[in-house]
Amino acid sequence: MVLELYLDLLSQPCRAIYIFAKKNGIPFQMQTVDLRKGEHLSDAFAQVNPMMKVPAMKDNDFTLGESVAILLYLTHKYKVPDHWYPQDLQARARVDEYLAWQHTALRRSCLRALWHKVMFPVFLGERVPPETLAATLAELDVNLRVLEDKFLQDKAFLVGPHISLADLVAITELMHFIGYSPSSRETGVGGRKEPEVRN
Amino acid sequence: MVLELYLDLLSQPCRAIYIFAKKNGIPFQMQTVDLRKGEHLSDAFAQVNPMMKVPAMKDNDFTLGESVAILLYLTHKYKVPDHWYPQDLQARARVDEYLAWQHTALRRSCLRALWHKVMFPVFLGERVPPETLAATLAELDVNLRVLEDKFLQDKAFLVGPHISLADLVAITELMHFIGYSPSSRETGVGGRKEPEVRN
Ligand SMILES: N[C@@H](CCC(=O)N[C@@H](CS)C(=O)NCC(=O)O)C(=O)O
Ligand SMILES: N[C@@H](CCC(=O)N[C@@H](CS)C(=O)NCC(=O)O)C(=O)O
Repeated sequence: MVLELYLDLLSQPCRAIYIFAKKNGIPFQMQTVDLRKGEHLSDAFAQVNPMMKVPAMKDNDFTLGESVAILLYLTHKYKVPDHWYPQDLQARARVDEYLAWQHTALRRSCLRALWHKVMFPVFLGERVPPETLAATLAELDVNLRVLEDKFLQDKAFLVGPHISLADLVAITELMHFIGYSPSSRETGVGGRKEPEVRN
Repeated sequence: MVLELYLDLLSQPCRAIYIFAKKNGIPFQMQTVDLRKGEHLSDAFAQVNPMMKVPAMKDNDFTLGESVAILLYLTHKYKVPDHWYPQDLQARARVDEYLAWQHTALRRSCLRALWHKVMFPVFLGERVPPETLAATLAELDVNLRVLEDKFLQDKAFLVGPHISLADLVAITELMHFIGYSPSSRETGVGGRKEPEVRN
């Protein structure tokens, strides 16, 4: 059976996997799990990912959650070009360092910023205290600075001269703001439309 | 020059690396970074890890942060026994899944529980509102349940029949409570003494 990917393309880590699979010509069947409809909480989805989060993957009877683990699984199984996850010890370690760092750093503060700046006030009509918002944006600033000063520096990509899994995970996190920013919602650019990725 | 590991053995991820290096006979020089003295905030340490967290590693002029990245680096460089990070695609994916999951799950809730149950009330004399503590412990319960039901199941180790990096990262997180629990502090078992690990 063909590989199944359980995704909602509104989710940052899902987009990383979707782009990676498309870009590397990995054949897969898309199983949309609509977070807004609560489909990730269904019994059927719990069979695929007991953690009830997207992304998730099913490869015959092997199921897997966690975007980083899925990206690494696809990397190993489909022997994608080396630059995604270099064999070189130090370059690979730098990718691993980014992938570990982002969980509690950039991803955490991007998620908080999204909720405090967009989801609560715009979609749910709930007020966010200004000091909470200020703390969230300050934390985001700190992490964006680490992203630039420690990881990106003056290079084109986060780790060396080529795109790697680290860039993919970073960009899908950062692009969220472009899609959801008030100005893009006004002009209809980005936002809630399902993205198209050309293979 | 010999590999340098920058650790404070009071820190859970530092202990994972320390035990791993000792157990696998990896030669290293211990550089203690005393968190309680704020040594991780020094300019000298920022050269090693600009994120100013322990653990960190220096291998000649290559510096690396993030415990998971350091464990993987040592795994690849020193060709440790396969069970730590299996070559088998699915077993490896399960280790990666655990290592990704714990950042925002077990580690997060263990840290919160430590602060809310021990650090604030016992060491800093600050009151933690009972509803905050209750929420923290409820989150910890959820994550311990995932640890058991999804990862450990009825196996001896988190991933298959042998110890892997996942177990090491999990156990160093969980043992923290034994060291810091009020009863162990009374009996003098565990606690703030530097642990001894026999090679
Ligand atoms: N660490 C996980 C995070 C997955 C995650 O947080 N997914 C979100 C969507 S971006 C989700 O499924 N949320 C639903 C929920 O938590 O109930 C990964 O990288 O895959
Ligand atoms: N994700 C990091 C976490 C490292 C971390 O949080 N280290 C703590 C000690 S357990 C630290 O250095 N804290 C000092 C600080 O944050 O100022 C890892 O796994 O290495």
